[in-house]
Amino acid sequence: MTSGEVVRADQNRLWTSLMDMGRIGATPGGGVGRIALTELDKQARDLFVHWCEESGCTVRVDRMGNIFARRPGSDADVAPVMTGSHLDTQPLGGKFDGIYGVLAGLEAVRAMNDAGVTTRAPIDVVVWTDEEGVRFSGMLASGVFSGVYRLEEALARTDADGVTMAAALEAIGYAGGEPIGGNPPQAFFEAHIEQGPILEAESKTVGVVMGAQGQRCFQVTVSGEEGHAGTLPMTLRRDALLGAARMVGAVNTIAFGHEPHPVITVGSFDPRPNSPNTISGQTRFSIDSRHPDNAVLLTVEGQMREACAAIAGEAKLELRFELVSERASVSFDEGCVASIREAAQRLSIPHRDMYSGAGHDACNLALAAPTGMIFVPCEGRHQPQRAGECQSRGPRRWLLGADPCPHGESALKGDWR
Amino acid sequence: MTSGEVVRADQNRLWTSLMDMGRIGATPGGGVGRIALTELDKQARDLFVHWCEESGCTVRVDRMGNIFARRPGSDADVAPVMTGSHLDTQPLGGKFDGIYGVLAGLEAVRAMNDAGVTTRAPIDVVVWTDEEGVRFSGMLASGVFSGVYRLEEALARTDADGVTMAAALEAIGYAGGEPIGGNPPQAFFEAHIEQGPILEAESKTVGVVMGAQGQRCFQVTVSGEEGHAGTLPMTLRRDALLGAARMVGAVNTIAFGHEPHPVITVGSFDPRPNSPNTISGQTRFSIDSRHPDNAVLLTVEGQMREACAAIAGEAKLELRFELVSERASVSFDEGCVASIREAAQRLSIPHRDMYSGAGHDACNLALAAPTGMIFVPCEGRHQPQRAGECQSRGPRRWLLGADPCPHGESALKGDWR
Repeated sequence: MTSGEVVRADQNRLWTSLMDMGRIGATPGGGVGRIALTELDKQARDLFVHWCEESGCTVRVDRMGNIFARRPGSDADVAPVMTGSHLDTQPLGGKFDGIYGVLAGLEAVRAMNDAGVTTRAPIDVVVWTDEEGVRFSGMLASGVFSGVYRLEEALARTDADGVTMAAALEAIGYAGGEPIGGNPPQAFFEAHIEQGPILEAESKTVGVVMGAQGQRCFQVTVSGEEGHAGTLPMTLRRDALLGAARMVGAVNTIAFGHEPHPVITVGSFDPRPNSPNTISGQTRFSIDSRHPDNAVLLTVEGQMREACAAIAGEAKLELRFELVSERASVSFDEGCVASIREAAQRLSIPHRDMYSGAGHDACNLALAAPTGMIFVPCEGRHQPQRAGECQSRGPRRWLLGADPCPHGESALKGDWR
Repeated sequence: MTSGEVVRADQNRLWTSLMDMGRIGATPGGGVGRIALTELDKQARDLFVHWCEESGCTVRVDRMGNIFARRPGSDADVAPVMTGSHLDTQPLGGKFDGIYGVLAGLEAVRAMNDAGVTTRAPIDVVVWTDEEGVRFSGMLASGVFSGVYRLEEALARTDADGVTMAAALEAIGYAGGEPIGGNPPQAFFEAHIEQGPILEAESKTVGVVMGAQGQRCFQVTVSGEEGHAGTLPMTLRRDALLGAARMVGAVNTIAFGHEPHPVITVGSFDPRPNSPNTISGQTRFSIDSRHPDNAVLLTVEGQMREACAAIAGEAKLELRFELVSERASVSFDEGCVASIREAAQRLSIPHRDMYSGAGHDACNLALAAPTGMIFVPCEGRHQPQRAGECQSRGPRRWLLGADPCPHGESALKGDWR
């Protein structure tokens, strides 16, 4: 097969596999609860391994439980092209988050089998262990693979009951023997649902992911003085809730001073004593700020600190503005990004460049190998209150519906080296 | 005794009585927990009755358990001049709220006894039942006395365990036989701690209370759409928390457009799901607005509704703005107010006119008889977080300390008719 030829995937087969996998840990709302390293996770892994072996792949498991299903290439000496994602979910998760990327990789293998295609490089379809981190720590296993964390430390991590990750892997039979780390693929691609509304809103079916946003999260504590709502005159008040509310408005405004806009969210807000007839003496709120450019994030942080300090000063309030977590932004490999964009162009798939707002295993892999991500739309997925409903549909419209469906055609080039 | 003569009260005796009464239901923080119609309330009533009888008063109890201790006047045919307040407290209340007014009335009687004064009208020192309304309903007993509520309905009210007020009065032996209502005093004066910082801040020792503020309370519900903090672009958000925060700022600003300023308080604020990385889909908050003039309160309400609707409209949010409680303002009797002001002037007591931010039994009495209130400072009382500390001091500085103490001299005129 030469570069430019197209292998047609079977969208019905992919959808059927997604639905079959979605039955393991299915929730009444139409979603899935399949926490990593549980019996349900084992069932999902077993099903995946079964499907891969059926498709002629050889399956290896490394010491962090990551599963690699290999479709051999013509040249056993070159590093594999790898694709995949994760099979574990949040306690009330969806059928598609992670799973889509794993089964899209499997479908690519099946489609290449059907087309009788031989690639030069081996193709590895990977399942990363415990991406969600519900029981241990998110993206830990892909992090060990990529050299971000040390194996021994990762295996020694304990869950809330004191069970180590090593023991949990043993318990489900996925404490593999393959060494981990030091064997990067020549490229890694992760397909994933967007978890945002942009592709759906713009009728695009592929998001060419340039990288992942950096994130800086803060807790802001505003302290004033409690008082009686009926007796303390307006001019004598030091109202922590009021000051905090003004800060919420101010940090929001800051987002619109940058292009592209950082996303700045105040999602939690806790006044004390939270009583209708008492002026709040202390109010805490969270700030979550994200942007593809770390320098912009730092500028934004400075502006937010300044704006909050000004409001606190004017209202005679005390202010504590604490960084509680940070994650640097990731830029994906230019070659990988370009190959995804060019494939979409070649196949006339409506697409756009975008950044990932969330963290993914690909963010770890980007530190070890040329990496790219492909986002697909997922109906209503950005609306958590509609989770039960949308989790039944996911990318269905784009796979099976009236919309032109890019996933009927594999965008993987045939001759990676 | 002629008008203008001064009867000296004994400030040490008043303080000692306050401290003695404060031992019944004393809390570790220096306050008092003495809920109405409990065994502790009975003990406090019994002590008060004992003191009154010691002072030569005859004690009557009406069907709502209100206690009237009468010091006779020279003319048995004229209606009494009445003073008093309440002995019950909040579960974590103070030693002075209510109790000060009762025991100041008792001290006036004791001082008149010491001075050998005979007034023309009888003096009644009253204890109103359950002002706080912790167990039944606040200001119910003074309301029945004043014709605001019907006796049978009040006695049939039940507490959380289904016990009626009638049964609770029987249980502590204070279901009196005196008929209630239809026998208004010729004047009622209630002395009370200010529950605000103004007198303390301005070094005034008497607040001449012109009336009680009206109050209108609202619950505001702002609805938008939940979303992922990392993936939903700023321009596509319908952030309920952000909209609500802007409304908090806007309603505060409205207060400063009126003179005197209404007090407007947002004390409770509840975003959902209240998670740092989720854009809030719905946020509720309270508004408590108070002003001496009902017309101003209604104007303020209109402005608040308009401001919130404008913010909601701009941000594509839905708005529910509901009135949850209202209380009309009360104006006290001009003659009573003037007599308090003139007495303070005559005795060179630093004083100022003011309004009550909270409700008091005097607000009910004002509907039945000429009524006035005297506020006294209470150290730090407006700061709930310092409650334990300040509840030990209360008006002590002004009664016993270096400050000139107005309460050494009774401001009651000698010849009320």
